Amino acid sequence: MPYAPINFNEKFSLFSEQWSPKIIAQMNDYHFKIAKIQGEFVWHSHPETDEVFIVIDGEMEIAFRDSVAALKAGEMIVVPKGVEHKPIAAQECQILMVEPAGTLNTGDAGGDHTLEAVPWI
Amino acid sequence: MPYAPINFNEKFSLFSEQWSPKIIAQMNDYHFKIAKIQGEFVWHSHPETDEVFIVIDGEMEIAFRDSVAALKAGEMIVVPKGVEHKPIAAQECQILMVEPAGTLNTGDAGGDHTLEAVPWI
Repeated sequence: MPYAPINFNEKFSLFSEQWSPKIIAQMNDYHFKIAKIQGEFVWHSHPETDEVFIVIDGEMEIAFRDSVAALKAGEMIVVPKGVEHKPIAAQECQILMVEPAGTLNTGDAGGDHTLEAVPWI
Repeated sequence: MPYAPINFNEKFSLFSEQWSPKIIAQMNDYHFKIAKIQGEFVWHSHPETDEVFIVIDGEMEIAFRDSVAALKAGEMIVVPKGVEHKPIAAQECQILMVEPAGTLNTGDAGGDHTLEAVPWI
């Protein structure tokens, strides 16, 4: 089929590593990426772009410098560009992210978690 | 809270009309829109942009001129720009769409279904 549906659960079943986003779709110059997360990520911001998180399964928090947003499956949030944030998940959480192709996962923070090349899955 | 989660079910509970998209979020110059659909939409294409459909609840089909893609909750599809398509849902289906702000729901087709101004909800 030339235009095939993408099944989130099927894609999540293909990998187990955490904090390791995979691209599942491209719309114009934006990527749709999935990731399994658990624990605390690094504080960072994306100076050039907003970023969308959609929770597919589980629960997560996004810490901001002045508040914390709690998200569960069936919820999304837009992190505005330039706003420092830190994703956190007590238990493993499956998320979908939408952001421009080439956006670094650690934004302006860099460090060990940085993925220079995000693979398709 | 300055950065609040958006709950899909909560947003869907706020309206009942079909084929009447509502904006729930903006990321850069893209809108995230939800809609309840049932029946057949019109054949149309978007000459300037790809379009993403994510099924939140229920099942739908997207007819292309040479194939049909069947989608259910937990699945997404990218309709490439310029490609004619027709959304179809036998039973009411709840969907999330991602496309550039200002994209017309009927694309190049126009007609009675066209919404010039999509409201926020």
